[in-house]
Amino acid sequence: MKQTAYKKIVVIGGGTGSFVILSGLKQYPLDLSAIVPVTDDGGSTGRLRDEFGFLPVGDMRQCLAALASENGLLRQLLLYRFDKGRGLAGHNLGNLILTALEDMVGSEPEAVTQAAKILRLKGKVIPISNQLVTLAAQYSSGKTVISEHKIEIHKLALNEKIINLYTIPQAFINPQDALEIKRADLIILAPGDLYNSIIANLVIKGAKTGLKTSKARLVYIVNLMTLNSQTHGFTAKDHLKEIEAYSGRPVDYIIVNNQPISTKILKAYEKYLEYPVKDDLGHDPRVIRQPLLAADTYKKPQSDKLKRSLLRHDSIKLAQAIINIIG
Amino acid sequence: MKQTAYKKIVVIGGGTGSFVILSGLKQYPLDLSAIVPVTDDGGSTGRLRDEFGFLPVGDMRQCLAALASENGLLRQLLLYRFDKGRGLAGHNLGNLILTALEDMVGSEPEAVTQAAKILRLKGKVIPISNQLVTLAAQYSSGKTVISEHKIEIHKLALNEKIINLYTIPQAFINPQDALEIKRADLIILAPGDLYNSIIANLVIKGAKTGLKTSKARLVYIVNLMTLNSQTHGFTAKDHLKEIEAYSGRPVDYIIVNNQPISTKILKAYEKYLEYPVKDDLGHDPRVIRQPLLAADTYKKPQSDKLKRSLLRHDSIKLAQAIINIIG
Repeated sequence: MKQTAYKKIVVIGGGTGSFVILSGLKQYPLDLSAIVPVTDDGGSTGRLRDEFGFLPVGDMRQCLAALASENGLLRQLLLYRFDKGRGLAGHNLGNLILTALEDMVGSEPEAVTQAAKILRLKGKVIPISNQLVTLAAQYSSGKTVISEHKIEIHKLALNEKIINLYTIPQAFINPQDALEIKRADLIILAPGDLYNSIIANLVIKGAKTGLKTSKARLVYIVNLMTLNSQTHGFTAKDHLKEIEAYSGRPVDYIIVNNQPISTKILKAYEKYLEYPVKDDLGHDPRVIRQPLLAADTYKKPQSDKLKRSLLRHDSIKLAQAIINIIG
Repeated sequence: MKQTAYKKIVVIGGGTGSFVILSGLKQYPLDLSAIVPVTDDGGSTGRLRDEFGFLPVGDMRQCLAALASENGLLRQLLLYRFDKGRGLAGHNLGNLILTALEDMVGSEPEAVTQAAKILRLKGKVIPISNQLVTLAAQYSSGKTVISEHKIEIHKLALNEKIINLYTIPQAFINPQDALEIKRADLIILAPGDLYNSIIANLVIKGAKTGLKTSKARLVYIVNLMTLNSQTHGFTAKDHLKEIEAYSGRPVDYIIVNNQPISTKILKAYEKYLEYPVKDDLGHDPRVIRQPLLAADTYKKPQSDKLKRSLLRHDSIKLAQAIINIIG
C-alpha cells in the first residue's frame, strides 16, 4: 500500500470540540484521525443507545460532519436536529442515520467506514473502544455518580471535585486507536468537557500507555470557559494538571486563547456560574498564546445536548496554530 | 441548453409500483420522470405529514431510491425502516431525511432537487401537486370515506365500489408535471393501489387534460392481484375501465402478466380475500401478454405501510416490455 507522506494528526475529544479543530485542519494536507469517547448516554444519543444497544453516535456524527469532504447538504443533514415530531423532537438526523447504518451493516466500525465512504471523509473517525460502557465519577466529597449524563448535570458542592474518573466495566482500547496513537506525529487533546469528553477517552485501558509510549508530540488546547458541573474554579493549570495525570505524560504544547471575551457573552455564562478559564501558566515555555475566538457568537448548535455555549474557538485560527507547531 | 435525444418516459404511480418500473428502466438510456401522489396520509408518511405539515414523502422516497445512480448504501439508507425506538419504530429513515431536507431548504420541490443531487439521480421525481390535500372516495353504497389511509383499510360491503375519487380541497397540477406529461413520448400508469396510488394522481386538476392532449402513448400495467379494500372482484377490464375513465383517453398498450402464480403465494393472498386479476381482455390488440413475475417471492418491504404483498412484477422483464414498445 502506498504510504502517505502527510503528517499524522490524531485528535482526541468529544464531538463539539473536535468538530472545530477538524473543520479547520481538514483544509490542510494531513493524515487526520478523530478518536471519540463511547460513554455518552444523554440526549438523542442516550435514547438511541438505550433503545438499540449500539455504541453512542453523537460524538462520531459531529466528527464525521467535520471531516466530510464537502461542507454541503450531506454535512448539514448529519447535523440537522428535529425540533418537533412525536418521538423525533431532540433527535439528530445524523444519529439516526448512523444507527440505521449500524443496524444494516452489523457493527459500528463498519458503519463508520461506510459513512466515511458516503461522505468521502477527509480522515478517520474511530471510537476509543468497541465496548459499550458507562462513565463513573468519584468526587472529593465521597460521592460517586454513574452515567455521563448525570455527571454532566451534577451540581458540585463547594470545593467538590472529581477525583477519579473511570468506566464500568473497564473498557479496552480499540486496537485501531492504539495504532493511530502509536503512529501519530502529533496528538491533540481537544477543548470540551474536561472529564466527559476528553478524559473519558484517556481512562480507557490502553490509552494512557499508548500516549506515554507514542513518539508523537502532545498538544492540549485549554478550554475558554469553566464548566459548572465539572471544572468550576479551574484555572488553566488545574486543567493541565488533570490532563497530564490522566495522560501519564507531560504535554508538549499548551494552546491558550489570549483574546478578551465580550462582556455580553461573559454575562450569559455568569448566569450559569461559568467564567473564563484563568491563564495562570505564566512563562511556561510550552504555552502558545494567541487570539483564538470565533468572530461570531456561536449559534445554538444542532446537537443532541442543549449546550449553552455561545463561545467557540475559531477553526481557522486553531488550525493555523497547530500547523505552526508541525512546521 | 443541450437537448437530449433520449426518449422521455413518465411513470405515474405510487412508490411501490413505480419503484419496480423505475429500477428496471434506469438501466436504459432514457429521460425518466416519476410523478407521485400527494395524498398519502398513513404510516410513517402520515405521522410526518401531520407533525411537519409537509407534502407526504413516502412515495417520493421510493422513487428516489429506485432512481439512485448506485444501488448501494445511500439507497439502502433511504429504504431503511426503524423497527424499534420510542417514536422511531415504523419510521422510514428516507422519510426522515426528506423531511429534514424540506425543513432545511424550505420547500419540497427544492428538497427533492437536493436529494436528487446527493443521489445523482437518473431521472426526476415530482409530486403531482404542490398542494397538501386529502383523498376522498365516494362509494356505490352512498358512503364517503375521507383519508387515503381510511380508504386503504375500508372494508368493502358486498358489491360496494368506489364510484368517485377526489381530493379535498381540489388540487392543481404542479406545472412541472404538466410539462413532463406534455413532452413525454410514453406515459406509464404503474401497477399499485388502483385508486390510492394511480388514480390519486389523475384526479388532480390538470392531469386528465394533460393526458388527453399529450402526444405520448399511454401504457397501463395491470395489477397482479386484486386489493380487497379497493378492487375486490375486479378483472383486468374493470381496472382498465377505471383507468380510462379517469385518464379521459384510451390506453394504447395494456401490459398483462400471463405467468401462473404459485399455489403457495395464492394461499397467502386468499387469507386476505385477494385473488389474481382475471385477464378478460381477450383479443384486444393493445394487450401485451408476457411472463412478468419476479423470480423470488418478495421480501417484506422496508416500507411505511405494512404491505402483505409477496408478489411483484420483475423490474427487468417489465422494463424489457416497455423498451419493446418504444422500439
